[in-house]
Amino acid sequence: MTRTLWLEQDDRLLTLDQTLLPFERRVIELASAADCARAIATMQVRGAPLIGAVGAFGLAFALRVDHSDAALADACALLLATRPTAVNLRWALDRVAERARAAEPGARAKVSWDEAVAICEADVACNASIGAHGASLLAALVRPDRALNILTHCNAGAVATVEHGTALSIVYALAARGVNVHVWVDETRPRNQGAGLTAWELSQRGVAHTVIVDNAGGQLMREGLVDAVVVGCDRVAANGDVANKVGTYLKALAAWDNDVPFYVACPVSTIDRWARSGDAITIERRDPREVTHVTGRGPDGVVTEVQVVPDGTVALNPAFDVTPSRLVTALITEHGRVEAAVGGIRRVLLAAGSV
Amino acid sequence: MTRTLWLEQDDRLLTLDQTLLPFERRVIELASAADCARAIATMQVRGAPLIGAVGAFGLAFALRVDHSDAALADACALLLATRPTAVNLRWALDRVAERARAAEPGARAKVSWDEAVAICEADVACNASIGAHGASLLAALVRPDRALNILTHCNAGAVATVEHGTALSIVYALAARGVNVHVWVDETRPRNQGAGLTAWELSQRGVAHTVIVDNAGGQLMREGLVDAVVVGCDRVAANGDVANKVGTYLKALAAWDNDVPFYVACPVSTIDRWARSGDAITIERRDPREVTHVTGRGPDGVVTEVQVVPDGTVALNPAFDVTPSRLVTALITEHGRVEAAVGGIRRVLLAAGSV
Repeated sequence: MTRTLWLEQDDRLLTLDQTLLPFERRVIELASAADCARAIATMQVRGAPLIGAVGAFGLAFALRVDHSDAALADACALLLATRPTAVNLRWALDRVAERARAAEPGARAKVSWDEAVAICEADVACNASIGAHGASLLAALVRPDRALNILTHCNAGAVATVEHGTALSIVYALAARGVNVHVWVDETRPRNQGAGLTAWELSQRGVAHTVIVDNAGGQLMREGLVDAVVVGCDRVAANGDVANKVGTYLKALAAWDNDVPFYVACPVSTIDRWARSGDAITIERRDPREVTHVTGRGPDGVVTEVQVVPDGTVALNPAFDVTPSRLVTALITEHGRVEAAVGGIRRVLLAAGSV
Repeated sequence: MTRTLWLEQDDRLLTLDQTLLPFERRVIELASAADCARAIATMQVRGAPLIGAVGAFGLAFALRVDHSDAALADACALLLATRPTAVNLRWALDRVAERARAAEPGARAKVSWDEAVAICEADVACNASIGAHGASLLAALVRPDRALNILTHCNAGAVATVEHGTALSIVYALAARGVNVHVWVDETRPRNQGAGLTAWELSQRGVAHTVIVDNAGGQLMREGLVDAVVVGCDRVAANGDVANKVGTYLKALAAWDNDVPFYVACPVSTIDRWARSGDAITIERRDPREVTHVTGRGPDGVVTEVQVVPDGTVALNPAFDVTPSRLVTALITEHGRVEAAVGGIRRVLLAAGSV
């Protein structure tokens, strides 16, 4: 499998320009802190784990040019400003900066580079572990006469991480075990990360899938066509409430109403033990233009943006929502199945050495 | 106010080509049964009551050409095949056909035309009554310090009927009473009837509104920003289950989970007493292209269609879903508030003389 962020000849850092997906697969090189900052800001790279990894390399690039404390601080500020709300980015930058500060000035460039590489390797290993645990859980739902139908929302896939993804890591692990798996892909308006990125990545990896509009999942569950919902998440509160891409909550309600298990795939690093519940998580309002316009490929083959509302229409764009823990069957972490409740969260944080 | 279906010089039947809205308001003439069938099938006209009215005129047009029993049966079959889910269409065709059959062959054309006109007038009166009853119910939710926030899905508005609409008739009646009303407009993928038609019609009539993606309503309810959900419907089963545009069920679940009243505005003619429950209602699968492509206005001002998925992507397009009666606070009919349950449905059918 190809990683989403990889090294060639040891120090050429390559990634995909995700703004061009799913219509063009273009590899771009990131060769400086400015390159990394620009790639994050313009969403050429997106997905919390991938942003963290690119930020880490950005800091390493900066320290190659100038390993002073001032340069380190400047580079951190530059990179952090790209996506101020992304928690993983701050976490990765802090981790690299801490190692760099502890090193001899002459060794800072190498130490920080090695740390960025380590962050990538840790992401890959973590996601592989989520995949293995999730596949073991979901294998119990396989029926001999038909495919295992998994519904997912947004993109919690390989392209959101260095490799494997979180929710989709489970799908890939099931497929690798020979399970006949089929994915219902929620389009995921407003940015269509399902229709664009998830459908693209599943097709690249040969996993059967069908795109549906975000409205359709409930009816498919009523018809018995969904065996499990598996989503990623942006943040898990200490009580197990889950903040994820807007629309997740509606699918959790439908899953609950139809006795379909609802799993949230997440690294332990996604748990925010300082947020007592979902109510403590601020829901970002993004640009209303994401609602009023849709990007796609026109009849002439050119990727363009069309307006779907009358001129002058006001729109509101809450980008995330909160799914109450009572609707979550379980979290699936690199440490295995975790109950979405205070006790389960506390135990996995202890197991991970995070408390 | 302008009707959505109207006569000029007594027998020129005119309507709007709704496939061009919200970007162009084009009046088209329907001059034959084939015109009417095509307009329904291509969704130039849509919305259960409007489809019924157009179907009725379609039958009248057919009987002008040939008033034989065979022609009547053929025209009924042609028109009925256009949209399988809409019960109003069958109801309107049955009503016109019954009158025609009872008439002298030479009078059939005129009798059926008059019946189509009567169906239109009855629709306008019925919707006005739904609006009045609904406004009285919802006025109880008005709070002095803020707008009454109503969330609606799809378009159950004036353009879905001959005039007023069903769900939006209530909004217009509230506004006419001086209530400060604001509508959250679900985009309603795949065909975007909310973003296109509902936003257009509300702006034409000066009602405050905000477009959201279909994923967002649950989060807005969690944030206390929705006072009531009001939707139309395509069919009500004898037990109160409601078939409506796909995604309605998800909003009903969210309303239930947040103690937000969920009202279904519907003429009694929408009730299908032969469908014991929602399980008896077949859910139409429409063209997957509605999912894989989005229509809007490009940067050059031309309305075009963009592809939002990778080439070769499979999509599924269930066009409706079923909302179980337990999630429905009440139906709002031309006879007032009706409990979405066997008893309530039976009483209103008796009151309407439909049993």
